[in-house]
Amino acid sequence: MLIDDLQAVLPPEVLVRDPDVLRGFAHDEAEWAPWTLPEVVVRPRSAEHVQAVVRVCLKHGTPVVTRGAGTGLSGGANAVAGCVVLVTDRMTAIHEIDPVERLAVVGPGAVNDDLRTAAGEHGLWYPPDPASSPWSTIGGNVATNAGGVCCVKYGVTRDYVLGLQVVTGTGELVRLGRRTAKGVAGYDLAGLMVGSEGTLGVITEITVRLRGKRAPERTVAGYFDSTVAAGEAAAAIRAAGVVPSALELVDRHCLLAVDEWKNMGLSADAEVVLLGRSDAPGAAGEHEAAVMVECFEKAGATWAAQSTDQEEADALFAARRLAYPALERLGPVLTEDVCVPTHLVPEMLARIDLAAKRHNTHIANVAHIGDGNLHPLLSTPIGDEDARRRAQAAFDDIVADALALGGTVTGEHGVGLLKRPGLENELGPAVLAMHQAVKNALDPHGILNPGKVFAFHSVE
Amino acid sequence: MLIDDLQAVLPPEVLVRDPDVLRGFAHDEAEWAPWTLPEVVVRPRSAEHVQAVVRVCLKHGTPVVTRGAGTGLSGGANAVAGCVVLVTDRMTAIHEIDPVERLAVVGPGAVNDDLRTAAGEHGLWYPPDPASSPWSTIGGNVATNAGGVCCVKYGVTRDYVLGLQVVTGTGELVRLGRRTAKGVAGYDLAGLMVGSEGTLGVITEITVRLRGKRAPERTVAGYFDSTVAAGEAAAAIRAAGVVPSALELVDRHCLLAVDEWKNMGLSADAEVVLLGRSDAPGAAGEHEAAVMVECFEKAGATWAAQSTDQEEADALFAARRLAYPALERLGPVLTEDVCVPTHLVPEMLARIDLAAKRHNTHIANVAHIGDGNLHPLLSTPIGDEDARRRAQAAFDDIVADALALGGTVTGEHGVGLLKRPGLENELGPAVLAMHQAVKNALDPHGILNPGKVFAFHSVE
Repeated sequence: MLIDDLQAVLPPEVLVRDPDVLRGFAHDEAEWAPWTLPEVVVRPRSAEHVQAVVRVCLKHGTPVVTRGAGTGLSGGANAVAGCVVLVTDRMTAIHEIDPVERLAVVGPGAVNDDLRTAAGEHGLWYPPDPASSPWSTIGGNVATNAGGVCCVKYGVTRDYVLGLQVVTGTGELVRLGRRTAKGVAGYDLAGLMVGSEGTLGVITEITVRLRGKRAPERTVAGYFDSTVAAGEAAAAIRAAGVVPSALELVDRHCLLAVDEWKNMGLSADAEVVLLGRSDAPGAAGEHEAAVMVECFEKAGATWAAQSTDQEEADALFAARRLAYPALERLGPVLTEDVCVPTHLVPEMLARIDLAAKRHNTHIANVAHIGDGNLHPLLSTPIGDEDARRRAQAAFDDIVADALALGGTVTGEHGVGLLKRPGLENELGPAVLAMHQAVKNALDPHGILNPGKVFAFHSVE
Repeated sequence: MLIDDLQAVLPPEVLVRDPDVLRGFAHDEAEWAPWTLPEVVVRPRSAEHVQAVVRVCLKHGTPVVTRGAGTGLSGGANAVAGCVVLVTDRMTAIHEIDPVERLAVVGPGAVNDDLRTAAGEHGLWYPPDPASSPWSTIGGNVATNAGGVCCVKYGVTRDYVLGLQVVTGTGELVRLGRRTAKGVAGYDLAGLMVGSEGTLGVITEITVRLRGKRAPERTVAGYFDSTVAAGEAAAAIRAAGVVPSALELVDRHCLLAVDEWKNMGLSADAEVVLLGRSDAPGAAGEHEAAVMVECFEKAGATWAAQSTDQEEADALFAARRLAYPALERLGPVLTEDVCVPTHLVPEMLARIDLAAKRHNTHIANVAHIGDGNLHPLLSTPIGDEDARRRAQAAFDDIVADALALGGTVTGEHGVGLLKRPGLENELGPAVLAMHQAVKNALDPHGILNPGKVFAFHSVE
């Protein structure tokens, strides 16, 4: 029996079988992706525990679904039939911050904001900042190659991962990557693990690159009558050669939902708000902020200014982060994550509006607009099955529109289950066959998060 | 016959069989790595030609060795028995510079400096700048994940590759990666191709990210009595939180060799020269330059100053670039490429000095010292076989020392043939087995540059 074998190699408190607790680990935050109750949950304390779990699962052919905080939005961490859910929430250690080499070594369960805080104590900065940063884990961030607000200037999780310790699909505990600034010894298998959503290995330790702390940011805001006008403002900023440290779009639906929840006194006079930031020091930052305000005005902003009130600026960014949970309070939300070439953002936003009208679906918008990464939030009234069907149809149209514009079906959330059909369309059969081959190579028994990202048929 | 089948699918001028010409494509610049004459050289003009070549080679089980300009330093492009050498020197097009999306699309044979020039005409910048940039190709840079002088601040080739068109080991022509700023649709197979040295696919087109042009650089120089003191100066700069846009070490041996060749009037009063640059705009750049000079002085520089003469500053960097060919004029040179944690650079430089003494070998040093990436140049008199044996022993000691210090056997040159033994020691059997599995998955017939990077045994 699986349970007997797990009990034989793990301390009792690592195994969880209480059905009420199992339920809490059965799925992530992706609405409507299928899930089931896991056979058992394990909460390992060490890489050796993880290795022991994988080896027992290998023996039994049992799927291993790894998860951190479960803040994923694509169903990547949803339990599959008969699986072990491996939770990293007891491997939270920040093992090391090295201020000279500018790197950190952390457990997969370390929370994103906790790493940022720890780095800050050494005058350093860990940039990747998904909206889930107060809860999501570095392991989950690596597994999905998480992005965030700062990516427009500072890149995504992939750009910060130097090395990984991983338990492989054959139960080996290995180190991939390096601690040095550069290195080209062999294939970039650490990079291959990033974004592979737990299908190629279970991450047990992460070494990330850190940057020096940056200058305080200036914030600019602009109000617009339409998402399309806001998209044009973002394109103008890019054309002007300014790389903002953040460039976010939040629409009125989101601001209202956050305000109803948190009573932050946010203005919702505008259909759409653009928030820009510059962390360039001194006069360069002043210049960037001025250029952004000018671009807002030229694109038809009804109001645009540099914020002189830090609290107000922070509240606007807090509202951006809270948009998803605020809407979720009002009913099931299906979160989109398409990314298109930046000059096609106005066109993509127009198509999202059309999809909302075509399918009579309520769509709110937040976006990392500087990256062309849009998050239409499709919300439906609780219990309205017909609205859900219409929302799904709008979701499918948006994915197809993004591909038609040369974009991708997922900018930063991952494929999980929700984007599997979109992925097949995006990659095509030859590249999908390469994925199958790599999966077979590194997980020959097909036990690691099977059925996520793409349909997988073990060679065995 | 292989030749007949190639003739049947390729225009006549694409095939080269003249033995004198074959010889010019038989090996790269790695001294002492084994090579042989190829069976035939092909110089395709299009991705379709490349695909036709790979398909014919698949039919015959013929190895395909891809090369660009042949400036590699590890033997990665050396011909193997019975192989087709595929040269990308007729696929040099810069297809597109997109100033809005800040990307370029180029053929694999486009020369690094040509891309930089073309980007510059749009106010943009392609950072990766290996010393070979006047000759080496973007395809070769991608295949080896080339670094260069600017990496200390701006990263390596990997950090700029957005997408690739590739002919796979099964003869499919596929697109990997993307044109969007972000994207996590499936495994990072484009990233996996970077640095895989032609063993996983033949690159036929490359999409790279570009940056905006930067501010003019300030240059600082410092003279030191020992490589170890210079290493301490570099560590001090890092500890001070300054990220220079270049931080290079050149020793007296190199300066003398360049001066003998080019008569540039370089001072060689010092044992070692450190060259630092800052491209921070305005006062920030002034501050960084001042901090670097201060760090030089505190570490015991015999002379240190910010250069006020742009020509002089450029001459020093030109000398850095010319060090390798200048030494090569004097006899066979074995180029090392270890990379160690930056705080261990003084220790590594001391060990290199010891290896030189232990094996009575002449070792000159250039280094991307800000990255901990050292290039000891082991040179021997022409025709002195005993000196070659001693140099090889010193080379092996340096590789072992780098691993003992937690470093890597190759920071940016690649494994090729010269670093295969070092790679095996660095990775260990479990990670090497993962490499074999990935190679088998993507090149199941084992025709792509077989025997490079690691020993490969096809599953067939």
